[in-house]
Amino acid sequence: MSKYQHIKELAYDANMQLPKLGLVVFTFGNVSAVDRSLGAFAIKPSGVPYADLSIDQMVIVDLDGKTIEGNLRPSSDTKTHALLYSRWEKIGGIVHTHSTYATAWAQSQRDIPIYGTTHADHNTVDIPCAPPMDDAMIEGDYEYETGFQIMNCLQQKGMSYEEVEMILVGNHAPFTWGKTADKAVYNSAVLETIAQMAFLTEQINANVPRLKDSLIRKHFERKHGPNSYYGQ
Amino acid sequence: MSKYQHIKELAYDANMQLPKLGLVVFTFGNVSAVDRSLGAFAIKPSGVPYADLSIDQMVIVDLDGKTIEGNLRPSSDTKTHALLYSRWEKIGGIVHTHSTYATAWAQSQRDIPIYGTTHADHNTVDIPCAPPMDDAMIEGDYEYETGFQIMNCLQQKGMSYEEVEMILVGNHAPFTWGKTADKAVYNSAVLETIAQMAFLTEQINANVPRLKDSLIRKHFERKHGPNSYYGQ
Amino acid sequence: MSKYQHIKELAYDANMQLPKLGLVVFTFGNVSAVDRSLGAFAIKPSGVPYADLSIDQMVIVDLDGKTIEGNLRPSSDTKTHALLYSRWEKIGGIVHTHSTYATAWAQSQRDIPIYGTTHADHNTVDIPCAPPMDDAMIEGDYEYETGFQIMNCLQQKGMSYEEVEMILVGNHAPFTWGKTADKAVYNSAVLETIAQMAFLTEQINANVPRLKDSLIRKHFERKHGPNSYYGQ
Amino acid sequence: MSKYQHIKELAYDANMQLPKLGLVVFTFGNVSAVDRSLGAFAIKPSGVPYADLSIDQMVIVDLDGKTIEGNLRPSSDTKTHALLYSRWEKIGGIVHTHSTYATAWAQSQRDIPIYGTTHADHNTVDIPCAPPMDDAMIEGDYEYETGFQIMNCLQQKGMSYEEVEMILVGNHAPFTWGKTADKAVYNSAVLETIAQMAFLTEQINANVPRLKDSLIRKHFERKHGPNSYYGQ
Repeated sequence: MSKYQHIKELAYDANMQLPKLGLVVFTFGNVSAVDRSLGAFAIKPSGVPYADLSIDQMVIVDLDGKTIEGNLRPSSDTKTHALLYSRWEKIGGIVHTHSTYATAWAQSQRDIPIYGTTHADHNTVDIPCAPPMDDAMIEGDYEYETGFQIMNCLQQKGMSYEEVEMILVGNHAPFTWGKTADKAVYNSAVLETIAQMAFLTEQINANVPRLKDSLIRKHFERKHGPNSYYGQ
Repeated sequence: MSKYQHIKELAYDANMQLPKLGLVVFTFGNVSAVDRSLGAFAIKPSGVPYADLSIDQMVIVDLDGKTIEGNLRPSSDTKTHALLYSRWEKIGGIVHTHSTYATAWAQSQRDIPIYGTTHADHNTVDIPCAPPMDDAMIEGDYEYETGFQIMNCLQQKGMSYEEVEMILVGNHAPFTWGKTADKAVYNSAVLETIAQMAFLTEQINANVPRLKDSLIRKHFERKHGPNSYYGQ
Repeated sequence: MSKYQHIKELAYDANMQLPKLGLVVFTFGNVSAVDRSLGAFAIKPSGVPYADLSIDQMVIVDLDGKTIEGNLRPSSDTKTHALLYSRWEKIGGIVHTHSTYATAWAQSQRDIPIYGTTHADHNTVDIPCAPPMDDAMIEGDYEYETGFQIMNCLQQKGMSYEEVEMILVGNHAPFTWGKTADKAVYNSAVLETIAQMAFLTEQINANVPRLKDSLIRKHFERKHGPNSYYGQ
Repeated sequence: MSKYQHIKELAYDANMQLPKLGLVVFTFGNVSAVDRSLGAFAIKPSGVPYADLSIDQMVIVDLDGKTIEGNLRPSSDTKTHALLYSRWEKIGGIVHTHSTYATAWAQSQRDIPIYGTTHADHNTVDIPCAPPMDDAMIEGDYEYETGFQIMNCLQQKGMSYEEVEMILVGNHAPFTWGKTADKAVYNSAVLETIAQMAFLTEQINANVPRLKDSLIRKHFERKHGPNSYYGQ
């Protein structure tokens, strides 16, 4: 048995959650799971529909983006995953989807404003939307550059990947991550929910204000702070 | 067998209706059921996804919010439930969700106007939206204060909890209640339906008037009045 | 066996299609099926959720709205059904729902404009929205008056119930009918689809024109005219 | 066994995907599959609901639109299929649906602007919306003329059917095609997704720009270019 079997299983299980959660159709998404001690991650193969996916098809890739094991080509977004794993030491999983509402915000090139406690339970800030890449990046090593675009956006906004586990890439779609592949999938579903609610909120009240600071702090701290006690 | 077994079962069954009705994802909601003679209620444990929930995990709490029985921590919203049970003698169940449309109205900080008979069959008034709490309440005993905010809002609007069984907490999400936990769940689903219809109604006709009084009275009385005969 | 067994079965089967088609939640709707030779129709009992419904529970009512057979109370909308059956000799079934998009248009008090061939395949006119009833009608025999409001609306617009098998009652919700109960259910589903598409069409293009006459005629005639050949 | 059995099966399987993908209700759609060597295609029979469909019911039609084999009447849109097969030599399947969002755009008489990479992964251009036909075409051989309207629209915009595999017919609904019937179904689902995202994008940002050229080129080429490597 492959020494990568455990991350293949983690990646497979996490990938299979995406269609169940309504976050993907056909092949529009991918999840990966990393093993830091092995310096490798397992990722969905390219172009295989979720209905046909199996554990054995997961592709093993190192942190430079080179395939180590597997008969299929890895997801075309593999280099974005590789770059983020190599720079962000504490993440264990990454998810990319084209989920409907989050993608609509990405296409709109707007950050998702923080309008309520559903958002504040998970993030203290507006969900950032990285601007579309400049032409040199697009025409260069596109998927690696997508990773840099994500990192640059967080850096410019003074955000840490440990605090903010989700981003929109302008004109493209969302990426999320977390300490495990399961947590990254959870974050994708949370982001889609927040995106839908924020869309509706602005439709219902065009002049709605952002959430006030005291409420942001309270909700985030009861879930994430040193004295956290949250859990519905 | 625990003397609280019957309310554990009531609370469990009612909680399990929420995902079936499309009102919750992951752990975003909770239902409780009270036994007045025992001075205690059963509530969903904190942070357990619905897919993993069992009857035995329900936590028994007294009306001061203290855990009496159970190995898990009760829902983080437990004190809100406790306060409402202690003040509102005739309710048997409480539901909190972050259902999509009702939460969008709560985030919009607007009452839901009464636009049709679907609404009037259940309430004669706009669904109230309590304003966001002031900073002292937020930084104090937050979940107890959420209960007070709900009670204060009804009082200021001259509404009775027996007549109006649903409210939005501004920037947060809906709470509903009823004589039983099942009725409280029903009210949550009704509220979500009303919230979606009101959103669409305003999109279709930005200048739509509220329902006229004669129609409000007629529909509510045929369902709730002394000569009620309603039932589709 | 009851001599009404066949219409009980027709009404039961038609009622059970409503939740499958996503047109009702809980008890928010009702279907009836008439037998002209018996001068009676079968209708859903009042207040029974669809999940608990059985054939034996269907209530048999005459065309004056009086119950002939059955242990349960008939739907609260029974008199509306009775009036329409007594005046419209060629219909075999009636459906009332609070389906989401059609109800939002009814609440908006607007006719649904004919924007495309999906609409024209079924109707050559805007779906009429009867105005809210006047106070005397509301405070009188409300459900009978609802039937008169429907008939008056068609009459004033010069429409025949044989050509236009669906209407919105302003502030309330849709009614549909047809030669059979199954056809009436089909019309309810078609109406909900048309209502959703018309809402979206106006959102996408606020200045969209109604469908032009030649296209209305063509689509309706290929489905309903003397030389009809339609069927996708 | 019929020598057309293989295309009956292809057409049946492709038709049955439509309700599973949420693209049709009742009978509102049809798929066909062609065999070039036999000069014939199999298409859904007219007016049969998807729930009742069987392989044997598929109707075999030649490229002039005449029925060769089958007991049922072919779809009323058969002549549109026949014309496109006879003019476009490299397509193997055609799909027509009234899917909700794509139909709303068709009713709105607007091309769907290219707002993101979900769109660019499949097309480098706005999804074209053919204008409503003129009265002479409508009153003539309507379904053949629908085919000409589609071809004329692509020609006037300088688009090839091999590059652009989807179109909206103004006031009507979408048609898609592809090298196989399965690919044509896939294109229908992609179009519905793109249509919903574009609708939401404009709601969220009324002034959103189209995708920039470098990003359009990059995404399309990584999927379709000579050095293609795409596949999520």
